[in-house]
Order: sequence, then structure tokens, then C-alpha cells
Amino acid sequence: MKCSVFFVSDSTGITAETFGHALLSQFETLEFDQATIPFVGDEDQIRAAVQRIDAAGASDGQRPIVFSTLTSPRLNEILRESDALILDFFSAFIHPLEIELNRGSSHAAGRFHGLVNRASYDGRIDAMDYALDHDDGSGARHYRDADVILVGVSRSGKTPTCVYLALQFGIRAANYPMTEDDLDAGNLPALLAPHKERLFGLTIVPDRLRQIRSERRPNSRYASLGRCRKEVVDAEAIFRGEGIQFIDTSGSSIEEIASQILQRTGLTRRSF
Amino acid sequence: MKCSVFFVSDSTGITAETFGHALLSQFETLEFDQATIPFVGDEDQIRAAVQRIDAAGASDGQRPIVFSTLTSPRLNEILRESDALILDFFSAFIHPLEIELNRGSSHAAGRFHGLVNRASYDGRIDAMDYALDHDDGSGARHYRDADVILVGVSRSGKTPTCVYLALQFGIRAANYPMTEDDLDAGNLPALLAPHKERLFGLTIVPDRLRQIRSERRPNSRYASLGRCRKEVVDAEAIFRGEGIQFIDTSGSSIEEIASQILQRTGLTRRSF
Repeated sequence: MKCSVFFVSDSTGITAETFGHALLSQFETLEFDQATIPFVGDEDQIRAAVQRIDAAGASDGQRPIVFSTLTSPRLNEILRESDALILDFFSAFIHPLEIELNRGSSHAAGRFHGLVNRASYDGRIDAMDYALDHDDGSGARHYRDADVILVGVSRSGKTPTCVYLALQFGIRAANYPMTEDDLDAGNLPALLAPHKERLFGLTIVPDRLRQIRSERRPNSRYASLGRCRKEVVDAEAIFRGEGIQFIDTSGSSIEEIASQILQRTGLTRRSF
Repeated sequence: MKCSVFFVSDSTGITAETFGHALLSQFETLEFDQATIPFVGDEDQIRAAVQRIDAAGASDGQRPIVFSTLTSPRLNEILRESDALILDFFSAFIHPLEIELNRGSSHAAGRFHGLVNRASYDGRIDAMDYALDHDDGSGARHYRDADVILVGVSRSGKTPTCVYLALQFGIRAANYPMTEDDLDAGNLPALLAPHKERLFGLTIVPDRLRQIRSERRPNSRYASLGRCRKEVVDAEAIFRGEGIQFIDTSGSSIEEIASQILQRTGLTRRSF
């Protein structure tokens, strides 16, 4: 069975995709042919979307599924003319919220992923600049400005996690790669010692580390299982010895790693 | 009026936050006191969450609002014992989807932001590595592997957009900053010419550019309005002369810029 799925939005479509993906992930044995129709701002555009949806349904011989985050009741009404299952995010929830909050909602498009809250947005971009300026041990003189400093061996997941913490949560995260010299010394590098309370360790199963490093530098000493195993054992010994909390990233996505770091450190999202 | 808002999830809480923020952004005059309760996996944990929600309501003198992405019907049932407005994402939509698709859903936790689809996840991380390795004009010898190459003057938004394209969509985006030499030459740098069909320009209003640059290097020639204005005019002249499509990033978030790039280039999300 081929089933077409559309994410229809008056803005970027990112909320519609998140909304739809979260639901479709509960039907993991099915394959969906997915497309996003963003920036739908007027009746002509929604009518064009309806035509596209109906054409897909006719071609599939199966009603498409449509996830809509259109905020306009009028545009949603036109969307409902298509022969599809319409799952309409705002209609489902905005009414109970209006009653609870005892006021009407703005029905304004593009509020969530737009530049509505400039300070919050600028905070995310500043945090991202910070993550990139303080990646891989650089910029240590500004560690006092970090919300958290991730430490771990090379390719344990520090950089993508720092960037995600910045983009999603506005958190300023630096990262420091533990070198062979650091690991052989068996204690915290002098650079990190003054910031101990903001350190958070990432570790990884040696075999997974070998695999990731092999993709970058096949058949190198750097990627050898022996080297990976020794580095991980040494890094974890330092974390334990210094009382630095750490998590294993092997089976986790960066979303999961980042969320766990927030939960364990008690850091507050800055980008609300 | 103080109103507490909770995002309750059996996984990272990121979908619950997206779900809630999208709705709350429609009530922009209100202030919400927001907290996320992630990784709620059993009855003890949901009962602890209910206590925390009820305590906030008692303290506020106002029922809290709870956005739940719990997939377990049993945990949602316990959540409903709290004295709060419960907006339950899965319950609202999973039933019509089950009927439409003619099968039960898995009710499995952590499917969306977890490592369910390893290939798709690895693609996002590879794309992020690619974006960082090809940031700011470096790694040009690998431009042939790029899905898109963003060009524009310094601080026009290239780097955060590339990283976002990678993380959110799995798109491999390189970026090239147009230097004064490039701009004075008045045509495409030789490095970029072979990849013309994958170039996408970012421009920005000179006064906004001056403001962004001034935060980095106050009172510099680099941040002067005259310099910003000349660079922007020269860059746009090259875009027009070479037939490179471009957008103005001044009033847009990186989510909006990234979505517009996908829409205009027809690039397909790789991370579905």
C-alpha cells in the first residue's frame, strides 16, 4: 500500500512535520510518501494544495493523510474539501485553550518558527556562535560563559550535542576533547579544573567508537579497537575519580543526549 | 495571571514542547511558567509528575496547562487525575489514523526522537559534520558532495542556516563567505564557478548587518554602515549578474530561511 502524506502549513511546515512524524512513527511497518507544502498564505495557494493532494490520492488509489498547522479557520475549511484524512492541529487544541485562558487566540500565521520573540531567537543564534567558537577545545578563555562544558574522547558526540543544545534550547555549550596526553595524565586538564562544576562527560561503547572513527580514518591507530577501548576506560576513570557525571551516548540520538544533559544538570532552557 | 505549563513526555519532551509552543504562541500577551518533565516511563514517575503539576496549580491559584505526548494510554489516564487542562497529543490523533490505516499503532515510547531509523539519523549527523567541515569557505575540494552551497557576505546567516539544514533535514550544505576581493572582482570566485547550479545566495539589509557585525567587532571598519552597504550591493550585483537565486535573511529566522531554501531549490528532505 502506498500512502501519500502532506504537511500543510502557513509558515515553515516544521511544526506540521514534527506533529506528523511523531504520529507516523507509531506505524513503523508502513511506508509513506511524504511532502511538505509550506508558506500557504491565501485561498489560491490552499486550492493549489488541495489539487495536489487529490491528484496524489487518485494516483495512489488511497486517500492521502494531511497534517495541517494552518491557523486560519477559512484556509482549513477549504483544505477539508480535499478527499483526504485531514488532521488539523490547531482546531483540535486551540478551542479548549481559549476556554481555559478565557480569551481568543490570535490565529496568526508563522508565530512559532518566525522571529516573534527576537530576544529568545538572538539567544539561540548567540548560543550557536558560542558552540562553534568553543568547539574542540578552542576558546577556553571564555569557558566561564558556558552553561555546560562537554568532555569526552574524540567522536563521542560532543560537537553535534553542543550545536543541538544551542539551536533547540539556547544553551551555551563548549566542548573539550580529551587527548591522549590528558588521558595518560589521569586527571583533569588544568584548563578544565576551574570549571569542574560545569563539566559533563560523554562516553561511548568502544566498538561503536571504533566504527565511527573508522568512517573518518579507516585502518588508523586512531580507529583501532585497542586504542578506542583504552581511551574510553581512561576517560571514564577520570570522570569517576573527579566526580563528573557522564552518560553513554552509544544508543542515543543527539535529542536524547541533550535532553538527558538538561535533566541531569537542571539547566533551564533559555529559548522558551 | 500566572499560569504554569508542563510538557510531559515518555521520551525527550521535544515533540511536547514543539506542540505546546506552537499553541501558546497564539496567546502572545500571556506569560507562562514552563517546565518539561521528560522520560516519564512508569506509574511512579507519572504520579510524581501529577503531584508536581497539582502543587504548581495550588501555588498559582490557577489550573496548569499540560501538553502530553505520552504514548501509553495507562500513563495518560493517571495524568488525567491531576487538576489541570490536559492536552493529549496522541489520544487526539492516533485513533483516526488507526482507522484510516486499518491497523493498530505501536504505542511505543521514544520512537520519534530516538534512534529508530539509524540510516536517517546517521545521515543527519553526517550532514552536520559536512556543514562544519565546509564552513566559511573551507573544504572547497568537496563541494561536489554538497546539496547546496550558501554564498553571501560575512554574517549574512550562512553558518547557522547550514547547520540547521543538516540537523533538521539531513541536507549537506556548504557555505562560502564572499570576501572583499571576491566582491571587488565583481564575478563568481573560480572556486564556485563549477558549482554554480548549486549556489544559493543570502543577502541582508545593510543596517541589520551593521548591527550584527557591531556586536562582534564594535567600531570596526568591518561593522561600518558604509562597508556593509557596499558589500551587500556588490554581492547582490553578483547574484543578479550570475543568475543565482537569493533571499533576504534580515527579518527571517533560520527555520524560515532553511524552509525557503528547500522550497525554492526543490531539494528534498533526506531525514524523513
